Amino acid sequence: MSLIENLAVQNEQKILLVVLDGLGGLPKAGKTELEAAWTPNLDRLAAASGLGLLVPVAPGVTPGSGPAHLALFGYDPVEFQVGRGVLEALGVGLSPGPHDLCARANFCTVDAEGKLISRRAVSEGRRLTTEECVQLCTSLSRVASGIEDVEVVVRPGKEHRFVVMFSGAGLAAELSDSDPGHEGVAAEGIRPLTEGAVKAARIANEFVRLCRAELSTRERANSVLLRGWAFPPVLATLRERYKLSAACIAAYPMYRGLARLVGMDVLECDETWDDEIEQIRLNRSRYDFFFIHLKEFDKAGEDGDFDRKVELIERFDGDILPQLVDLDMDVLCITGDHSTPAVMGGHSWHSVPFLLHSRYVRPQVQVDQFAERACARGSLGRIAAKDLMALLLAHSLKLTKFGA
Amino acid sequence: MSLIENLAVQNEQKILLVVLDGLGGLPKAGKTELEAAWTPNLDRLAAASGLGLLVPVAPGVTPGSGPAHLALFGYDPVEFQVGRGVLEALGVGLSPGPHDLCARANFCTVDAEGKLISRRAVSEGRRLTTEECVQLCTSLSRVASGIEDVEVVVRPGKEHRFVVMFSGAGLAAELSDSDPGHEGVAAEGIRPLTEGAVKAARIANEFVRLCRAELSTRERANSVLLRGWAFPPVLATLRERYKLSAACIAAYPMYRGLARLVGMDVLECDETWDDEIEQIRLNRSRYDFFFIHLKEFDKAGEDGDFDRKVELIERFDGDILPQLVDLDMDVLCITGDHSTPAVMGGHSWHSVPFLLHSRYVRPQVQVDQFAERACARGSLGRIAAKDLMALLLAHSLKLTKFGA
Repeated sequence: MSLIENLAVQNEQKILLVVLDGLGGLPKAGKTELEAAWTPNLDRLAAASGLGLLVPVAPGVTPGSGPAHLALFGYDPVEFQVGRGVLEALGVGLSPGPHDLCARANFCTVDAEGKLISRRAVSEGRRLTTEECVQLCTSLSRVASGIEDVEVVVRPGKEHRFVVMFSGAGLAAELSDSDPGHEGVAAEGIRPLTEGAVKAARIANEFVRLCRAELSTRERANSVLLRGWAFPPVLATLRERYKLSAACIAAYPMYRGLARLVGMDVLECDETWDDEIEQIRLNRSRYDFFFIHLKEFDKAGEDGDFDRKVELIERFDGDILPQLVDLDMDVLCITGDHSTPAVMGGHSWHSVPFLLHSRYVRPQVQVDQFAERACARGSLGRIAAKDLMALLLAHSLKLTKFGA
Repeated sequence: MSLIENLAVQNEQKILLVVLDGLGGLPKAGKTELEAAWTPNLDRLAAASGLGLLVPVAPGVTPGSGPAHLALFGYDPVEFQVGRGVLEALGVGLSPGPHDLCARANFCTVDAEGKLISRRAVSEGRRLTTEECVQLCTSLSRVASGIEDVEVVVRPGKEHRFVVMFSGAGLAAELSDSDPGHEGVAAEGIRPLTEGAVKAARIANEFVRLCRAELSTRERANSVLLRGWAFPPVLATLRERYKLSAACIAAYPMYRGLARLVGMDVLECDETWDDEIEQIRLNRSRYDFFFIHLKEFDKAGEDGDFDRKVELIERFDGDILPQLVDLDMDVLCITGDHSTPAVMGGHSWHSVPFLLHSRYVRPQVQVDQFAERACARGSLGRIAAKDLMALLLAHSLKLTKFGA
């Protein structure tokens, strides 16, 4: 048990962790997205909160969503790595055990010679609909539910995406991807990367063969690609580690899956911010830790759309933050999982501003803004993201004294 | 040997580490205790010093006095843990070896049926005097100096408190406390928590029996309670690690004991701040490292007495600091072991301001105050308390270059 785990106690105080995905930014015309946004509510809250910066993984390291979130939940993201296949599996509602091999899959379109026409089965600019994906997965489930002694589960995701989970003895995750990464060539056979992965490769290739046979009469979405092979890591839950009863409110599958992996209950909600907050309100008495994930900031950043990211921040400030404050949690933390500066059009290594509101913080002197440079002068300093959880627990009086 | 130990060299420069116990605070009406206090001398010194914040153990972790001080002395407080019984034993002047089992003890009052009337032998609101404790311990020493092949030492502390040290083969510290934690019930028998602790439990229970027999005719303080069983950790001394000749000036037993554990000489002094400074003055030439511990700030914080903590800080600033500056040490560091915000009435996890005065610091720009939020913008940043010692050594030129 770690130091923090040894000190953790249960109490009635409530923590709300609000993750605005990809929140951190970089200046365009002198101001970052957070600095450019008009955010009177965030700024007023910042003036009465502790501010600081989170280093997601390590200086200079740009994290994916998996490690970035594990760190926020108090797990060392270098020690505990979650493969993409596992994240996707969790996100579509599967609960893989430590010996269930997961892969991300998607429908693709190949020509008569087997060469890839569209890696994502796009036709005339249109993606597959999620409804079509569900139907196709039902077909695949019928023809490929078991291979040798291995049970196979096919579960649809959004649009062209689905997940395959292989359960059986003697599997291994050291497998190559079948996606060649570009079109005009044939999909690759799945190769074992270690001797122990020979059986898994054989099963995987047979799965692909069965899928192609089933889909062969179709013009579009007539084959499949697999990648991101992984087993789930074995993670102690938030309850085991911190005695927390935790709930996740997230619209996107991956974040729901990640939360499930650390033992959070995933609350059902539709994809509107308002409904997400309503779910917290309805379940307020049932949990002592709430994680709410809002994705749109990251998408705007990935799209390089500075103005849209600014607008989303302003919408959060005007519509959502007052509702979150009204929930009257003992500890309210607002941060991101990583930076997605619009000027970079993708995730980055930059530190992430965080705000911790509690009756036990030292507010700043002369800081009245929630933004990157204001947080660099904050009273909570620059900390590793994996240490944030200890601060959340401490400020809700959930950590006892260490030593006499 | 650690990196720092490998680099340490002896020289003539002198270091003074001033620990104001529980110094860090939280705002009440907008200002922390340090911010509310009128401290012209501290502020002037701060403007010419390096400032920073110490994280006592880890983010979010509230330390007891033991780990907080070990960290200030350069020891990893998670690696080296000192049981309370050992701290108390050292504090009353015992020098337990690694195989001497120590326990905190106190006189209590029980009724005819053996039920606890007062866990601290309080009678009509009055505690036992230290003189009474000394007399009672003398009686106990007479009747319980040896049990089986184990030597027993009883040493009085303050008021109702005393220490018992058991020296002999086959002892173990895995023992339950006899203090049930509340009154109206009988004291508990001491139970072995492992198989190896059977002998220790038998000796401990026989000790309690002998004490009760000796005290049985008394109305008050007619029994004893034992807790905090521990052996001392084996710590390399400051001389071994850093080539330091170190002296401790502290009125309170625990801090004297802790200093002794890391090899400091404990100078005799009465309990006034002025006498403590006089002891440094008298012994200036004999040591190159002085640790002076002033307890009262922590007491005011524990009592929730914001105004008293402010007054004490002002008294330190007016009466004591000028004398410390006049000692003209090469390095003068003023800090606390942890925060004890009056608004929380107890130790807390918050970082602790520190000031390092030396001819080799980078003073701040636009900081002219010694307080939490000023130190958050200090030139020395936010560091782990266990790294402070390396800064003290470096600023007194006691660390050679690392590598060629």
